[in-house]
Amino acid sequence: MRLFDYPLSGNGYKVRLLLAHLAMPYEYVPVDILKGETRMPQFLEKNPNGRIPLLQLDDGTYLAESNAILYLLAQNTSYWPTTAVAQAQVLQWLFFEQYSHEPNIATARFWISIRKIETTPFNEELLRQKQSLGHAALRVMEDHLSRRRYFVDDSYSIADIALYAYTHLAGEGGFDLARYPAVREWLARVRGEPRHVTIDQWTVAVSAG
Amino acid sequence: MRLFDYPLSGNGYKVRLLLAHLAMPYEYVPVDILKGETRMPQFLEKNPNGRIPLLQLDDGTYLAESNAILYLLAQNTSYWPTTAVAQAQVLQWLFFEQYSHEPNIATARFWISIRKIETTPFNEELLRQKQSLGHAALRVMEDHLSRRRYFVDDSYSIADIALYAYTHLAGEGGFDLARYPAVREWLARVRGEPRHVTIDQWTVAVSAG
Repeated sequence: MRLFDYPLSGNGYKVRLLLAHLAMPYEYVPVDILKGETRMPQFLEKNPNGRIPLLQLDDGTYLAESNAILYLLAQNTSYWPTTAVAQAQVLQWLFFEQYSHEPNIATARFWISIRKIETTPFNEELLRQKQSLGHAALRVMEDHLSRRRYFVDDSYSIADIALYAYTHLAGEGGFDLARYPAVREWLARVRGEPRHVTIDQWTVAVSAG
Repeated sequence: MRLFDYPLSGNGYKVRLLLAHLAMPYEYVPVDILKGETRMPQFLEKNPNGRIPLLQLDDGTYLAESNAILYLLAQNTSYWPTTAVAQAQVLQWLFFEQYSHEPNIATARFWISIRKIETTPFNEELLRQKQSLGHAALRVMEDHLSRRRYFVDDSYSIADIALYAYTHLAGEGGFDLARYPAVREWLARVRGEPRHVTIDQWTVAVSAG
């Protein structure tokens, strides 16, 4: 397997974290999104939607969308539940992550801490909206986690992995997690899972295989 | 089963369309998002994220996120493929729909044709961005469909159902589909599937059970 990824990407980190848990070997191919490499013809041939992470399977097939990659890698492991309803609940949180969480929390982090965007009245208003919607997503997580150890069936799954990625980086997007104690306890619980790697430990993940 | 839904919602329509294909009976509970009913305490108890569609299973469990609902309902039917790689490819398109397609095409439609938003410089600039990103998503679909009849494995699946919902309404968001001939042929193909219902035929879907 070969993972095309940008080292600072939380979406890529989801995949690296699951691969580390599974101790699966893979080839890491860094792609520099700041240099526009995902929009160049040789990358668009692989993923016409021009985004990382992108997984190339051993038969050559390309799979895009971080949460679809998590689904494939988690099959027949403890990170994917066995009943259809619990599976659908994991997917509910994966779609929540991509619709209500990532576009606000990850985008704010990207603008503030990675690609410093231009300060214009439009960008400032959009960032204010993203702060407000990001806090709404964190509030939904806080309420859910105040009565549970993990998102679905009290068992660590790809729902936790997907939501951990950008939640633990929320501070880089200007979100103060102090008001979300259940979220912070859950973050610590995820960090305590066997074979956990941090976002800058991807080289360890590679050699772990 | 009970479906909480807003009749004009494309996300709700996805679920109604699959239920019609499956000839499954369900109770329909209209929720008026324009009156803020999804943000009221009695709804937030059911879905803390305050969104429709929401499916209540016969055991009382609530499931949110239209594409997670499609997943559950499609299990063991022809609308969900049998191999893990094809399943992950269907999910790839479902995540594409919720990240790259719906926030642009559905939101533009909502602003222009349903909840007429205030014309401010901020809203106009945001709408321009959504038009540009929406066309990028349609271009990805056009390229993919120019060589295929359906999104995954040349077989009609919930990937097609999810993408059909807002693509066939794109005109209401100011998107001209004339330049996407493969997309238009695919829309006609979806309309030709057995038991197809239109977005305003949800009462038919209910009585079909």
